[in-house]
Amino acid sequence: MLRVLAVAEEPLLVEQLDHVFQSTGKRLRPAIALLSAGFHPNDGRAVEIMAAAVELLHVATLVHDDTVDKADTRRGRPTVSSLWGPNAAVLIGDYIFATSATFVCDTGNLRVIKRFAETIMELSRGELEESAKVYSPAQEMDSYLDRIYKKTASLFATASEAGAILSGAPEDVVVVLRDYGYNVGMAHQIVDDILDLEGDPEEFGKPVGQDLAHGILTMPSLIALERNDGESPVLKYFRNPEDQRALGEAVALARDPSIIEESYSRARDFGRKAVDSLAGLGRSASVESLEEVVHYVLDRRS
Amino acid sequence: MLRVLAVAEEPLLVEQLDHVFQSTGKRLRPAIALLSAGFHPNDGRAVEIMAAAVELLHVATLVHDDTVDKADTRRGRPTVSSLWGPNAAVLIGDYIFATSATFVCDTGNLRVIKRFAETIMELSRGELEESAKVYSPAQEMDSYLDRIYKKTASLFATASEAGAILSGAPEDVVVVLRDYGYNVGMAHQIVDDILDLEGDPEEFGKPVGQDLAHGILTMPSLIALERNDGESPVLKYFRNPEDQRALGEAVALARDPSIIEESYSRARDFGRKAVDSLAGLGRSASVESLEEVVHYVLDRRS
Repeated sequence: MLRVLAVAEEPLLVEQLDHVFQSTGKRLRPAIALLSAGFHPNDGRAVEIMAAAVELLHVATLVHDDTVDKADTRRGRPTVSSLWGPNAAVLIGDYIFATSATFVCDTGNLRVIKRFAETIMELSRGELEESAKVYSPAQEMDSYLDRIYKKTASLFATASEAGAILSGAPEDVVVVLRDYGYNVGMAHQIVDDILDLEGDPEEFGKPVGQDLAHGILTMPSLIALERNDGESPVLKYFRNPEDQRALGEAVALARDPSIIEESYSRARDFGRKAVDSLAGLGRSASVESLEEVVHYVLDRRS
Repeated sequence: MLRVLAVAEEPLLVEQLDHVFQSTGKRLRPAIALLSAGFHPNDGRAVEIMAAAVELLHVATLVHDDTVDKADTRRGRPTVSSLWGPNAAVLIGDYIFATSATFVCDTGNLRVIKRFAETIMELSRGELEESAKVYSPAQEMDSYLDRIYKKTASLFATASEAGAILSGAPEDVVVVLRDYGYNVGMAHQIVDDILDLEGDPEEFGKPVGQDLAHGILTMPSLIALERNDGESPVLKYFRNPEDQRALGEAVALARDPSIIEESYSRARDFGRKAVDSLAGLGRSASVESLEEVVHYVLDRRS
C-alpha cells in the first residue's frame, strides 16, 4: 500500500490513509488473488498489482459502508467517519476507490479491468439494494443470496478469476477458480452475518445484532422468520424501530443454537463447493492453501 | 443515460437516478468529447460511450460534492442528499461512479481507460486538498490553480483527449485537443468561482459567496488577499467562522468590480490559449464549435 501513501502530500490525508491501512484486516481477497495465480508460470508482477487493487477496493467500500452505517468502530478501532466526520470519509473512500482503479489499469489486461469495473458496480448495487430494503418485512432468502453475491462474493470471484487470468492460466482453470472465489465469498459473508449475532463483541470488534438493529435481515434472521409462522419479534421491531424490547427478542430468536447451526450448515455447503471446485486442479501447495482459506473462513471467530 | 436506468430494478433507485439525470446540466464535457472526435473519420460509437462516461463521472462527483458541502439545491433543484439523506447520496454517487467506469471499459481502449482512472484520482485529490485547506489563510494562487486543474480541468482535458484518441486522430492532434480541454476547463472553473460571488442567486441556483462561507479561497478572494496588505475581513472570518459580519465584508471585498474584472481577465487568458491551441487544426465546423464552447464558458451567467 506504500504507493498510495507516497502520492499523498497533504499531511492530513497521509494521516487519514495511514489510519485506514494500519488496521490489520484479514487480507483474504489479495491472498486469494495471489494463490489463484499459482497454476501457471508467471513473473507475479501483474498479479501483485491486482492483489493490491482488490484490497484497496475492499477498503474503500468499508470506509463508505462505515459512513453510511454511522459505525464508530471497525475491528475495535475508530472509523474514519467517527474520527474526521462523514464528509472526510466520503472523500477518503472516493480516493481509495480511485487508487484501486489506477492499480487495476496498471495490470494492462482489458478483460481484468472490465471485470473489476463490473465488480465495483455490483458492490455498489448490493449496498443500494440493502439500503432500499431496510426495515422491510418483504426480504426473502433468494434476494439475500443475490445481495451477498453482489456485496461480497463478486469481489472474491473477481480476485480469484483475475489471479488466474493474469497468470496466463488456460480458460478452464480460470472458470474453476472463479467458481472457487464465488463460493468462498458466499461462505465468508454468511459467517460474517452469523458472527454479527453470536460473535464475541470484544473479539469481533462491534456490538451484537447490528444487522437486525439496522433493519437488515441475514441468513439467521431469515431462517428464524421462515420457521416462525405466527407473529415474529423481528417484524414487530421492523414496524416500530423504537421498540428496543422487540429488538432484544428478535436478536435472541435469531441466536437460537439450532438457527445458528443451520446457518453454519449453509455456509459449509458453499465451503464444500469451493473445495470441490478445486478437485480438477490436482494436488499442489496452491490448492492446499486455497483449501486452508476455506477452513479459515468457516472457523474464524472474528 | 438510458442504460443506467435500465439496469436498476429497485423502484427507489430508479426514482433517485431519474431525479439526478432530469437536471438539465450544460453537458459541456460530453460535447467537448464528441467535438474532439471531429478530426478523423470514425463511426462515432466509442466516442459516444466515452461522452456518456465523462458526463456520468461528472454527475457522480456532483452528487458526492453536494453531500460533503451539505448543499440543499443544485441549479435550483433539491439535491439527492437533501431529498434522501447523505447516506443515500454516498451510495448513489458510488453507483454512478461505477457506471462511468463500466462505460469507459466499453470503449475497449486501454490508454483512454488509464487516463480516465487517473482523472478519477485527480478529481478526488482535488476535493481532498480543498477540504484539507478550508479556513486556512495559507492558500496561494499556485495551489488554487493546481486544485482547479484537479477538480475540473483534468476531466475537460480527458474528455477532449479521449475524443481525439478514440476517433483515431494522429498524436499531434491528440496533444492539441488535450491542451484545448485543459485550458477550457481552467477558464470554466474560474468563471464558476466568479459566479459564486457575483452571479444572480436565482439564475445561478445557489446563494452568493458560498465558497468563502465554507472557508474556500478562489480567484477573486485570492486577488483580494494579494491586494490587501493590512488586516483582511477574509482572514478575520477564517479565524472565526461564526463572525457573519466579517463574512459579509469579505464577500463585499471579493465582489469589488476591479477584482471581478481581473478574475475574468485570468479566465479569458485561459480561453485565449484554448482558442490558440486549435490554430493548427485549420478551419472546420468542429473547430468553430469548439471555439463557441470557449465563448459560452466565458460569457455564461449561470
